Amino acid sequence: MAWLNTNHVMSQTTRFTLSQADIPRQWYNLNADFPEPLPMPLHPGTKQPVTPELMTAIFPENLVMQEMCPDRWVEVPEPVRDIYALWRPTPLLRAVRLEQALQTPAHIYYKYEGASPAGSHKVNTAIPQAYFNKVAGTKRLATETGAGQWGASLALACKLFGLECNVYMVKVSYQQKPYRRMLMHTWGATVHPSPSDQTNYGRKLLAEDPDCQGSLGIAISEAIEDTATHPDTKYSLGSVLNHVCLHQTVIGQESIKQMEMAGEEPDVVFGCAGGGSNFAGIAFPFIQKKIKEGKNYRIVAVEPSACPSLTEGELRYDFGDTAETTPLMMMYTLGHKFMPPSIHAGGLRYHGMAPMVSHALKLGLIEAQAVHQTKVFEAGTLFARSEGIIPAPESAHAIAAVVQEAIAAREAGKKRVLLFNLSGHGLLDLSSYESYLSGKIQDV
Amino acid sequence: MAWLNTNHVMSQTTRFTLSQADIPRQWYNLNADFPEPLPMPLHPGTKQPVTPELMTAIFPENLVMQEMCPDRWVEVPEPVRDIYALWRPTPLLRAVRLEQALQTPAHIYYKYEGASPAGSHKVNTAIPQAYFNKVAGTKRLATETGAGQWGASLALACKLFGLECNVYMVKVSYQQKPYRRMLMHTWGATVHPSPSDQTNYGRKLLAEDPDCQGSLGIAISEAIEDTATHPDTKYSLGSVLNHVCLHQTVIGQESIKQMEMAGEEPDVVFGCAGGGSNFAGIAFPFIQKKIKEGKNYRIVAVEPSACPSLTEGELRYDFGDTAETTPLMMMYTLGHKFMPPSIHAGGLRYHGMAPMVSHALKLGLIEAQAVHQTKVFEAGTLFARSEGIIPAPESAHAIAAVVQEAIAAREAGKKRVLLFNLSGHGLLDLSSYESYLSGKIQDV
Repeated sequence: MAWLNTNHVMSQTTRFTLSQADIPRQWYNLNADFPEPLPMPLHPGTKQPVTPELMTAIFPENLVMQEMCPDRWVEVPEPVRDIYALWRPTPLLRAVRLEQALQTPAHIYYKYEGASPAGSHKVNTAIPQAYFNKVAGTKRLATETGAGQWGASLALACKLFGLECNVYMVKVSYQQKPYRRMLMHTWGATVHPSPSDQTNYGRKLLAEDPDCQGSLGIAISEAIEDTATHPDTKYSLGSVLNHVCLHQTVIGQESIKQMEMAGEEPDVVFGCAGGGSNFAGIAFPFIQKKIKEGKNYRIVAVEPSACPSLTEGELRYDFGDTAETTPLMMMYTLGHKFMPPSIHAGGLRYHGMAPMVSHALKLGLIEAQAVHQTKVFEAGTLFARSEGIIPAPESAHAIAAVVQEAIAAREAGKKRVLLFNLSGHGLLDLSSYESYLSGKIQDV
Repeated sequence: MAWLNTNHVMSQTTRFTLSQADIPRQWYNLNADFPEPLPMPLHPGTKQPVTPELMTAIFPENLVMQEMCPDRWVEVPEPVRDIYALWRPTPLLRAVRLEQALQTPAHIYYKYEGASPAGSHKVNTAIPQAYFNKVAGTKRLATETGAGQWGASLALACKLFGLECNVYMVKVSYQQKPYRRMLMHTWGATVHPSPSDQTNYGRKLLAEDPDCQGSLGIAISEAIEDTATHPDTKYSLGSVLNHVCLHQTVIGQESIKQMEMAGEEPDVVFGCAGGGSNFAGIAFPFIQKKIKEGKNYRIVAVEPSACPSLTEGELRYDFGDTAETTPLMMMYTLGHKFMPPSIHAGGLRYHGMAPMVSHALKLGLIEAQAVHQTKVFEAGTLFARSEGIIPAPESAHAIAAVVQEAIAAREAGKKRVLLFNLSGHGLLDLSSYESYLSGKIQDV
């Protein structure tokens, strides 16, 4: 740890903070700028493009309109901006201590979304989704959650807008992450381990295999069935869909302003990718600059080797869930029956990828990398011990790729400017770090 | 929850953020402004004022000098400011949603110290203590921790400065708060449940009672014995001492600037009080304005009814620890043999109170209140469900007093400006909230 001893003398922290007035007033919609239009979702039966009518069965009309919106900019309602202000704008920092730990000429910047009360970027879309549902007269929301970051975020959002919240939590995370479950309870939500006895689909799976660990796909199916079978209930999804990616663009918009404050432009932008929403959040505003201003940023989605939809999946129409209840979406997928191993980054255990992120990869606007679990925790621990913040295992995927790039920069003797989205903190994932530190983690 | 439904329309979040340049360059020393000098600590044997020589057995000389410093302002070394910048200045917000929940004319402001990587104010002193020890050539630090917030903060500080960290954690918290223990491990510290088998004193207590739950007093004794019996080791304390209160004054100094931004002055300032450091942090700079500018703020220390040193203890010379190894300090105390019940706010389970805080109470510069545990979690849950942030059980003591004051303001139909220090978040205390929500919490 010799490098650390002198660290405090060498390093100069730079933290770029924006004021409340800098919270974006509009979300950015990449669909307005894609050189080729995004393929429409299809009705599983007719194979025809889905109609708004079909979608309004589970989503409120105002969000369905957003999902299909062609406009480049979508206004952020003032009540949403007002709640964003509880933690936004989030800070952007230069990770000088990490740079020194790696002895790299690279400049490493991170946008910190863990500053939110729920500890991740997920609230950026939970708040508007609860708001638009409230306005549409919804009384109750049903959803699924992997690691629990989405469920916790929606629990908070529902509480702030006076909606009931019913969460199906992937069983492996329900067991591994009791604190996230308690967090949802503290914010007043009801939480079921999925597969659960609350739905026909869940009961069917439990009959087949009582020890089924669950998956995001299964939990989605349960939440959709719950929605279809309860009055005044709508469904809410924390990733994948266009309007979710749209809401997350506050991250990238703020980051662009903060990089201007830093007086640098990123050579490479990194985000971890499960369903794709935090990646979309940091990436899409930079992709716009790429398209409109001819910037040549590299934009990298980082996924787990254990669930490699972008790097090993195929681009085709597939279901968003396991029970084949959703429309067919054009996306990179491992197949909707794919059952990922129970890695610690529960939020990245999804068989597919957001259609918008998939389309961006197909068009060559972004690239993708997969990393193994031990590298992820090695990078996460190094970050924690140099920058202080404990990264969520999901976010640590991006850090693993950044570390690799920073080492390459050192070996090439080239300065590179690297930016990544630290999408959440890992304070409720410490048992995963404990497993890593005691050598008990699988290198999947 | 009717009030919440319209909440998002009525409320207007205001968040007062300072820039990196606003991080205080000096700590404020209330000892320079007390109308009567603070009674000196005494040697337990000779009953004479302790000499610096005696204290340098366990503390580095530079910190001993700070402990006895008469100067009003003490410079914050640049390397310390540089690490403060990872999370400071911390935000100050007006809790508009809490005001609406309480339907009070009171304006409620809170300073949020949970924004630090360790989740509480404790890092404000952990960083300078590790720095001054590093400069003095210390290789290893020994300390105690209650709920684990101090231990985690010192673990991080030691890692950043390349020092070994050895923590004695009160056994009841070691068992109740596994995540804080894991947090210390992730930052590279060694953690022992106290009483432990690492010290003669610990072994003695375990022989008498193998199920001893431990206390801060016992853990302090173990850490001091560890220091005395290991080379290149110094002792570090997270509260009580003058230099600890000194380091925390960054909180109040920033708060004064932020209240000026808000265009209001507090009628009442609240902080929870265990050993007294976070209370000192928010209170002392306001006490200076009281003394120098004749302001008539009410400044309230809030403690648990289960450990009421300020409200039911007596002001006298007493030991800081249970094994009678520390100098005698003039403080409000329940007696150094006092064993508090195992309440969830482990950080407030201390038999005494910081001499400076005790002196301020004696001189009538502050007042004190005690609150019961159920009121604390009731207030903490209300805050979480209206403002989002889950408060640490310790910090929720201050919220309970604020809620009481806000209701009194409503009943009196008077606008009052209330400010409190939200000293930490409760993300690692969720099992305590779970106990409360399931009706399993004791009303001690």
